[in-house]
Amino acid sequence: MSSNPATIDVVGIGNAIVDVLGEVNERFISAQDLTKGSMALIDEERMHELYHAFPPAEEHSGGSAANTMVGAAALGSSAAFIGKVCDDQVGEIFAHDITAAGVEFGVAPTESGSATGRCLVAVTPDGERTMSTYLGASIELEPKDIDPQLVTAAEVLYLEGYLWDPPSAKEAMRHAVDIAHEAGRRVALSLSDPFCVDRHRDELQLLIEHSVDILFANQEEAKALYELDDLEETLLVLEEVCELTAVTRGGQGSIILGPEGRVAVPAEQVAKRVDTTGAGDLYAAGFLHAFTEGREAAICAQVGSIAAAEVITHIGARPEADLRAMISARVG
Amino acid sequence: MSSNPATIDVVGIGNAIVDVLGEVNERFISAQDLTKGSMALIDEERMHELYHAFPPAEEHSGGSAANTMVGAAALGSSAAFIGKVCDDQVGEIFAHDITAAGVEFGVAPTESGSATGRCLVAVTPDGERTMSTYLGASIELEPKDIDPQLVTAAEVLYLEGYLWDPPSAKEAMRHAVDIAHEAGRRVALSLSDPFCVDRHRDELQLLIEHSVDILFANQEEAKALYELDDLEETLLVLEEVCELTAVTRGGQGSIILGPEGRVAVPAEQVAKRVDTTGAGDLYAAGFLHAFTEGREAAICAQVGSIAAAEVITHIGARPEADLRAMISARVG
Repeated sequence: MSSNPATIDVVGIGNAIVDVLGEVNERFISAQDLTKGSMALIDEERMHELYHAFPPAEEHSGGSAANTMVGAAALGSSAAFIGKVCDDQVGEIFAHDITAAGVEFGVAPTESGSATGRCLVAVTPDGERTMSTYLGASIELEPKDIDPQLVTAAEVLYLEGYLWDPPSAKEAMRHAVDIAHEAGRRVALSLSDPFCVDRHRDELQLLIEHSVDILFANQEEAKALYELDDLEETLLVLEEVCELTAVTRGGQGSIILGPEGRVAVPAEQVAKRVDTTGAGDLYAAGFLHAFTEGREAAICAQVGSIAAAEVITHIGARPEADLRAMISARVG
Repeated sequence: MSSNPATIDVVGIGNAIVDVLGEVNERFISAQDLTKGSMALIDEERMHELYHAFPPAEEHSGGSAANTMVGAAALGSSAAFIGKVCDDQVGEIFAHDITAAGVEFGVAPTESGSATGRCLVAVTPDGERTMSTYLGASIELEPKDIDPQLVTAAEVLYLEGYLWDPPSAKEAMRHAVDIAHEAGRRVALSLSDPFCVDRHRDELQLLIEHSVDILFANQEEAKALYELDDLEETLLVLEEVCELTAVTRGGQGSIILGPEGRVAVPAEQVAKRVDTTGAGDLYAAGFLHAFTEGREAAICAQVGSIAAAEVITHIGARPEADLRAMISARVG
């Protein structure tokens, strides 16, 4: 274990994605054979085909862990991001936005010719989002893209479950976990999506048991992880295997399982749910920000809920309001 | 004069631009030497430099005449657009959005290597926008890009004043004007910007006197056109030289000068002015839609005002609400 104190708060590893957000009706979801509320991986050909059918859209930088790092920076944390783009216009947009948001980002772009990743986000009138992701350059993240000094410098290493899909990116994450633990740092993981959990259940279970200090999961992901139908049963397993877990439940708030026992924290009230994209990402941002400030678990969850509530009141998965002021007014 | 009836309502010619919208403070405007509220042309190098200083942003398809065609299509007009993009990712975004909005768009992309045009839109807290435009591929529009069948088919040819800047695009517009008049169609022109008027005053005066049937200008552009300080004097000149003119005055509504005499039409009330980008473009869209339906000038102006009011209540220069329903509820 290293005795050097961390010099930054959090470094995230995830897909580098630009979101293409369009408002669709329910018919579009069924006509395009999409599974409402989920994230599906698509290839470049299908991306262009689906984009062709897509309504007029707007582009926002996204990517789950990237959104979390932007949220953490907006709250005042020092944050960095590791993810792979191509040297193309979409990659320029991604790199610009995350850097301008105050997040350190310096991974060399890929030269393989794969375009920067794009996620077609179909927003239905109920504010639900259905995502079709072309990972593109993202999947070319490799162990050599992990800067050991950066990982060593961060109090928390935050991993996006989605990155378990591409094999070389998974190796990059395992490499980062080793570096972080070697340096005595904490490792946090977000499960990202129940289908992603289905694809990698055994590996994720092992990782959580042996290498994850802080786990973020919504209740569907948590149940999928252990193939259980009952939430209470799932919570009991999680209490056994992981040191600290935040289970989010949408409008029902979140449940924290940790050394301080079990704490249920209510969700923040929201006047109008416009677009839920990024709710989980911003919950993790708020939680980690408070965690690295040494706050107790219930406060971490409350800060997470406030950050998540802000991001669902507008289109796009990155904060628009002054999160720092909101937190200091509410939590201090 | 052709005796064939028009088969579509309106065809617009303009810059093909994707807007990059970021929220800035007043200090950013002065630190970057921008002239608040205006549109400045920048080269590719300056675009990258300014983008580097820009806050996190979102991308929306734009371009003045393109916005107008999208607005007209949203109102139920059949509309087409002529403008030049590059075969790059930003060009794909532009082509997708305008086509998905129901506007016919089929100009061959340039192969010169100039990137698709981008406009950095700095939105200040008062909702004012300051634009820095890299025209890129847009300036390569040439006479051979004008499809004579398309121009002949449209009841109105709509021209964007900004396109007077690049010489070959200006020739393309003159060529389109000749085709339209040959076919007995109407030619409409929007002056776009007082600085653009300054750059091309003599040519624009001649064009308006000899070739323009419908002129759109805000009061600053109208005064700049004749270098007059007094609005009343300006209106008297315009009544002499142009058959039908709509002079917009922001929150003070618009004044129509035409065969039916002079009519002042109040602006629509707006709860909150979020982003004025596209207000003039959508005014023209509403006006032209009603015009091609044979409505009287005061109704054309009212429909223009309703469309303009919608677009300033949200970020982005293209309509988000159901404009057609709004108009049928208000105007019938």
